[in-house]
Amino acid sequence: MKLATLKDGSRDGQLIIVSRDLKTAQIADGIAPSLQRALDDWNFIAPQLEQAYLQLNAGRGTNTFDFDAKNCMAPLPRAYQWADGSSYVNHVELVRKARNAEMPDSFWHDPLMYQGGSDDFIGPNDDIVLASEEWGIDFESEVAVITGDVPAGVKVQHAAEHIRLLLLVNDVSLRNLIPAELAKGFGFFQSKPASSFSPVAVTPDELGEAWKDGKVHLPLRSTWNGTLVGQPNAGVDMVFSFPQLITHLCKTRKARAGSVIGSGTVSNKDSAKGYSCIAEKRALEMIAGGEPQTPFMKFGDTIKIEMLDKNGKSIFGAIEQSVTEHET
Amino acid sequence: MKLATLKDGSRDGQLIIVSRDLKTAQIADGIAPSLQRALDDWNFIAPQLEQAYLQLNAGRGTNTFDFDAKNCMAPLPRAYQWADGSSYVNHVELVRKARNAEMPDSFWHDPLMYQGGSDDFIGPNDDIVLASEEWGIDFESEVAVITGDVPAGVKVQHAAEHIRLLLLVNDVSLRNLIPAELAKGFGFFQSKPASSFSPVAVTPDELGEAWKDGKVHLPLRSTWNGTLVGQPNAGVDMVFSFPQLITHLCKTRKARAGSVIGSGTVSNKDSAKGYSCIAEKRALEMIAGGEPQTPFMKFGDTIKIEMLDKNGKSIFGAIEQSVTEHET
Repeated sequence: MKLATLKDGSRDGQLIIVSRDLKTAQIADGIAPSLQRALDDWNFIAPQLEQAYLQLNAGRGTNTFDFDAKNCMAPLPRAYQWADGSSYVNHVELVRKARNAEMPDSFWHDPLMYQGGSDDFIGPNDDIVLASEEWGIDFESEVAVITGDVPAGVKVQHAAEHIRLLLLVNDVSLRNLIPAELAKGFGFFQSKPASSFSPVAVTPDELGEAWKDGKVHLPLRSTWNGTLVGQPNAGVDMVFSFPQLITHLCKTRKARAGSVIGSGTVSNKDSAKGYSCIAEKRALEMIAGGEPQTPFMKFGDTIKIEMLDKNGKSIFGAIEQSVTEHET
Repeated sequence: MKLATLKDGSRDGQLIIVSRDLKTAQIADGIAPSLQRALDDWNFIAPQLEQAYLQLNAGRGTNTFDFDAKNCMAPLPRAYQWADGSSYVNHVELVRKARNAEMPDSFWHDPLMYQGGSDDFIGPNDDIVLASEEWGIDFESEVAVITGDVPAGVKVQHAAEHIRLLLLVNDVSLRNLIPAELAKGFGFFQSKPASSFSPVAVTPDELGEAWKDGKVHLPLRSTWNGTLVGQPNAGVDMVFSFPQLITHLCKTRKARAGSVIGSGTVSNKDSAKGYSCIAEKRALEMIAGGEPQTPFMKFGDTIKIEMLDKNGKSIFGAIEQSVTEHET
């Protein structure tokens, strides 16, 4: 099924059920007020949502309305956890190579993961509001999962059972703040402002055969200022599957319902597939010619991130947003 | 006023109002079901809680009961943000000196802060459950604030206005996992399992004159296996005040209501004040004798963290917990 969160002036928004074709929707009336509440009691709530979803797709929805991503918040407008992996190790290797830094071999078998801020997620069509272009504004197109409760020490063969939903992410990054921040040793902080999410989150069954081995085997399309700049396949060159990322996350602690776990910037070794973040393009330029050519994002720039099924239909709806200047 | 969260089988628990002397309590009946809900609408809810608190202290509470920290969850059993500073730079310098690493001068004027997991906080008397002593289990005694909504780019002179509550934290750390994790460059992750919090969170006015310049000017007492091992003053040698930490957090993004921001391990230059984490004790031993003497925590160890006012009364109640083995 497909779920989204409607702007209603509240912090958590209103849970809605969206038809498979993303054309119509209805409020999850009498089932759950918010997505977090549904996740908190998923085994009880999900069958009821599923039932309403079947009716909606059959044209027998209740008080249906046209679905419009502009009216959506992030599916979880705030979450208790956002942990982002870096599963496309190719991307990490390229970025490092560009600055003549060797990549430890361990990166191929021990996932990189950072803890991100999750208190203030951005809606799919809402602006990315930042105070300075000097920060080196970049998008990062990713796939993510939302989990139920996961026990500490979960084994990889059991981790997939805890995946409730999938969605897309724009993990906005401030490239020029990263080097100094990582040099301090405590990881990303100011360099990772609020992330944006696709309008719709879907259960794994919606992906059909494209959901296999804990990976999504479809291209992720990034369109920057109207130009398609990347369409790498998210199932290719993903060194750590989502179950592996969950196992990494839960080595020393539980993950509670509503934890959002990202794949990291999707990247294929085949550079003809383009890029999912400007930093990777710049890294390739560095390697080829000694210096980057492509500038980072400017105020007014747009970014669209979308995944289509094999029939060309949008699965999650599109993240489609502008970068705008924060007036201080 | 003083607030706590009662275990009631739900994920967010039941908000209660606790008397100043921590002896009696009453449910925040008809006011707010949970602390997060109170924080979501603080300007409307807080005066009602305050009114009930005044009545409770005057012996005119409604359906009061004996307050018992054992029945408490963390004040926020799960939060949308946990960001931990490292304000006692003396501590950072010592730990670095012990491993012959120089500390950049920038650490004295640019705060260190990491994003921690916030989906699963531990109650004040609940066990710290971990799978292995080999991880190097350590406590870290800290003070923290809980904020309301803070705008991006907040100036330091306005940051204090957004502090709603203060409380104590045990930022449990797995020392033997830290070096390899930090070497990867993405900060702490597996080395920082769930944190524990004091039973009670208090508004700044409860601290009286001890709350000054955005710091808490009282000793923080850490008692490990029944021995008082540290009582550094949290107002001394705190290089970055809470308003400064909030300003750092909000440089590139907002912080939303219920964000928890930690001070970092409290540490005084005067080593006679003892230590708030074993790592610091071991660092001093390294510097003095070339190797650490004090082992990290074992299963069965206890840790008590408490702050007393100048009359010797507990302000927040005590974090008092055991380390136990996770059966896998």
